[in-house]
Amino acid sequence: MSPRIEADYLIETPVDPRRAAEAMAGEQSSGTFVKVPGETPELRERCAARIEALELLGTVDAPALPGGAPGEAYARARVTLSWPLDNTGPDLVNLMATVSGNLFELRQFTGLRILDIRLPDAFATAYPGPKHGISGTRDLSGVANGPLIGTIIKPSVGFEADQTAELVATLAAAGIDFIKDDELQADGRVCPFEDRARAVMRVINDHAERTGKKVMYAFNLTGEVDQMRRRHDLIRDLGGTCVMVSLNSVGLSGFLGLSRHSDLPIHAHRNGWGYLSRAPMLGWDYAAWSRFWRLAGADHMHVNGLRNKFSEPDDSVMVSAKSLLQPMFADKPCIPMPVFSSGQSAVQPPETFRRLGNADCIYAAGGGIMAHPDGPPSGVQSLRDAWDAAIAGIPADTYAKDHPALAAALGQSRK
Amino acid sequence: MSPRIEADYLIETPVDPRRAAEAMAGEQSSGTFVKVPGETPELRERCAARIEALELLGTVDAPALPGGAPGEAYARARVTLSWPLDNTGPDLVNLMATVSGNLFELRQFTGLRILDIRLPDAFATAYPGPKHGISGTRDLSGVANGPLIGTIIKPSVGFEADQTAELVATLAAAGIDFIKDDELQADGRVCPFEDRARAVMRVINDHAERTGKKVMYAFNLTGEVDQMRRRHDLIRDLGGTCVMVSLNSVGLSGFLGLSRHSDLPIHAHRNGWGYLSRAPMLGWDYAAWSRFWRLAGADHMHVNGLRNKFSEPDDSVMVSAKSLLQPMFADKPCIPMPVFSSGQSAVQPPETFRRLGNADCIYAAGGGIMAHPDGPPSGVQSLRDAWDAAIAGIPADTYAKDHPALAAALGQSRK
Repeated sequence: MSPRIEADYLIETPVDPRRAAEAMAGEQSSGTFVKVPGETPELRERCAARIEALELLGTVDAPALPGGAPGEAYARARVTLSWPLDNTGPDLVNLMATVSGNLFELRQFTGLRILDIRLPDAFATAYPGPKHGISGTRDLSGVANGPLIGTIIKPSVGFEADQTAELVATLAAAGIDFIKDDELQADGRVCPFEDRARAVMRVINDHAERTGKKVMYAFNLTGEVDQMRRRHDLIRDLGGTCVMVSLNSVGLSGFLGLSRHSDLPIHAHRNGWGYLSRAPMLGWDYAAWSRFWRLAGADHMHVNGLRNKFSEPDDSVMVSAKSLLQPMFADKPCIPMPVFSSGQSAVQPPETFRRLGNADCIYAAGGGIMAHPDGPPSGVQSLRDAWDAAIAGIPADTYAKDHPALAAALGQSRK
Repeated sequence: MSPRIEADYLIETPVDPRRAAEAMAGEQSSGTFVKVPGETPELRERCAARIEALELLGTVDAPALPGGAPGEAYARARVTLSWPLDNTGPDLVNLMATVSGNLFELRQFTGLRILDIRLPDAFATAYPGPKHGISGTRDLSGVANGPLIGTIIKPSVGFEADQTAELVATLAAAGIDFIKDDELQADGRVCPFEDRARAVMRVINDHAERTGKKVMYAFNLTGEVDQMRRRHDLIRDLGGTCVMVSLNSVGLSGFLGLSRHSDLPIHAHRNGWGYLSRAPMLGWDYAAWSRFWRLAGADHMHVNGLRNKFSEPDDSVMVSAKSLLQPMFADKPCIPMPVFSSGQSAVQPPETFRRLGNADCIYAAGGGIMAHPDGPPSGVQSLRDAWDAAIAGIPADTYAKDHPALAAALGQSRK
């Protein structure tokens, strides 16, 4: 018996939910709309997708999405389908078409969202998973405990290489652990990749020689596969410790072209995630989507942040972050380091720590560092203070009494 | 002055639409939420995105998407933004983050959809575009006029290589021009890619030797980049004339890894398109999305079909198909061959021809061929008859009087 791939979906349908689930299973395996020669019982037995579970969740009066078959009411349900591994083999790229291909367009559905996937162990053998993950990132950054305090080069675009390096020098002097390029900054004429890499690594290497601390900088090398491999090699040769890639720009085959080659932690940026997820009854839950990238080798994964500047509610942020901590396989858990960012300051660490359950994360702030009333070093210190207090179980206000950087940051945030 | 990239959006917002558009322009270029050192007027002049047009479209009472800022009413507008080419350079992969990155998550929007993009000529120089397109596909298939009549191997998965080849023999004998793998069929254990390639090409080459007609078969080589290149070479060496790839599975860097290497027409499958497009106020219009793949080298692009089995209305299908005929650049139009499929039969050709304005397409039917009452050869003939009548301007019913295959197909479709 072939082991089976499973996927969970939230569906909304004007027809009987079981019949709708059968249509989905048929469309995504050996089913055909018109009976064709060769679709034998043996073939169906070998290859058909199967409904493993179906849980009704009630009905709604109006369809979430247009284009479905007409109906009186729309039933919602949670459905689990399974497929024999033999249909695709342990092939992450082709798994996409099986679990998330044509099904979203079926008329039987007025809502369809993929919630999660579970894969047979053969997938763990076939793919690298994170080569560095949390422990490798701690080793390379020298941050043994607590979060890596990070920031993003801003303005997003516009600085030349030397200006970027100057800002890196300021941030390194401020005690930062981690810096990333903005996803808009790649290889434009104002700030070519190679110029930026050389200028920034000169600063980081100098700082490391003087202080023993090598700041981890995630260079955005998003590009074509051969280009990303060359850029990765340049960063490695310059002594860099991290590369960044925009997942939705390069796609899964593009990402694997880099990850199989890479020696460095890969900082996986999810920009574009909104178009995949923001309609509640369409698209992707983060747990399902992130598993593709985790198995493919993402070492750091963005999850937004509590009280972020975007449209995502806090509960959704924490569900995403915690989903990254669920092992994918017993022998290969594929756990990346979650990256919290967007509107983060010294205010959110206690709740972030409490809800995440640990401090194994990158905690990135922009204004929370650069706009601290006493300057960037106090900005970095205020974030460290806030996390130290949270980890020690001390209320931030109490801790702030003898930690002035935190006190100033919290005072400012109350204005 | 740097030439500018432009993108059009449909927005819905609880705030003043111009302020919302300014937030979008800021987020996607040099803007920052907190004023930072270095964001000078000169830098903004050089790198900031600009609002080129804003057309109000009225208001709605309820937000299309959750998570936006609260409001009394929600204004809809069509907005055009522009960016200096220098921000990214002529870089299609990084263009993704600029025109379709974080913006979908902004709280200023309760709806945001990218409608179209326009690129400076430097992009035409940097990317291949379709190497074969319509004329190359006609040359390789030997179909000088009218559509390529095509079909899809069904059941989607489950046939072994030899069974697939047997069905190809039946279809070749029936006079088919074009056959494609289903997107679910890639390299599973039941039907490994190489076995299928060899078995199918043996049949196709034999048929070509006997009849002079080489059926074009789109082998689904979706996979990692190095794997796709090897599979492409195998198909080429076996005398094959087409390869197929699932765009949303491989992503843009993955696709470019194949397309820059490829000598054969690339049949670009859009499965997964539903999650990108089905929520009307989120995601992608086909025109914007398809331009990335056209410039990257897609020779055939799926557009669904009239009266299809999915949720897409006919008008949307035709808007997509016609968008492919708009030249992208004066010297490099990047026009792929549209592929009509899904529930197609002898019924839809007159309207498809009239609305498309020509017969430069692949017209793929499953049941319309295999389930014809007089068998597959009559199924293929009925589709040819229907297109011949449409091109000649003769009503199908009239033409059917002395074309029995068409008569039987239309008779069946009326049951």
